[in-house]
Amino acid sequence: MLILGLDPSLTCTGWGVVRAEGPRLSHIANGQVATDTKASMPERLLHLHDALIAVIETYRPDRAAVEEVFVNKNPKSTLKLAHARGAVLTACGRMSLPVAEHSPRIVKKAVVGTGAAEKQQVQAMLKVLLPAANISGPDAADALAVAIADAHLGGH
Amino acid sequence: MLILGLDPSLTCTGWGVVRAEGPRLSHIANGQVATDTKASMPERLLHLHDALIAVIETYRPDRAAVEEVFVNKNPKSTLKLAHARGAVLTACGRMSLPVAEHSPRIVKKAVVGTGAAEKQQVQAMLKVLLPAANISGPDAADALAVAIADAHLGGH
Repeated sequence: MLILGLDPSLTCTGWGVVRAEGPRLSHIANGQVATDTKASMPERLLHLHDALIAVIETYRPDRAAVEEVFVNKNPKSTLKLAHARGAVLTACGRMSLPVAEHSPRIVKKAVVGTGAAEKQQVQAMLKVLLPAANISGPDAADALAVAIADAHLGGH
Repeated sequence: MLILGLDPSLTCTGWGVVRAEGPRLSHIANGQVATDTKASMPERLLHLHDALIAVIETYRPDRAAVEEVFVNKNPKSTLKLAHARGAVLTACGRMSLPVAEHSPRIVKKAVVGTGAAEKQQVQAMLKVLLPAANISGPDAADALAVAIADAHLGGH
């Protein structure tokens, strides 16, 4: 079972693919898709969409997972995030990939063991859980964390 | 100059194409794209995206316009709207269509003459400005209003 974790954002979308064989996890690939801040919104969304299509075509995951999103203290950045998420989920739709949503708390709990974990704890545990992974950056790390959580939760 | 007005929403996205020749406006086409509420979010976004691609391929507008979006009293529905907007703007990006954003106030002012106009006043003025239009529904009406505003504002 190959799981694609996604951490959408307009500036830089992280992705990570893990293989889950029963309780065993292994790292397949991860990366980040940055967009040109000088490009228009439609151009940036198209870039995210097309890059995700390429990732899905390359690794052929069985399912995808993404963190739930809430409107937080910065509504403007949440709106941008939701636009990016729309472009990324459109790509999943095109590739007939089912997408589960997990709360940030569930993701932390699955990776670290507590829903109140700090970002650094998540990153440290990623190194333990996926020792072979050369992680592209913080967005790819977040994407791998969502994929791991999805593997732990099993099925959609 | 053909202008595509858009009123994105996950449930039903409105669109409308008008021709602007100097100060003269004429109606070309309008419609609404509804999505299956039982389908998954990625499937619904894909449907919106692909329907918009078909509209753009059919009418070949020179530019597009959409209302600005703000986080309002219902953050959950604003998030859904922003996802739909992401899918729709991705379609504009794919078709190399420049997209302008206009505030709801500017749109009302352009159509009715006052930024504080009621929805009914906007719809009544649409009938005056585009007498030949057979309007598909309220979302198509909102899309035509954005297109008219964009025509009045001229160029991006």
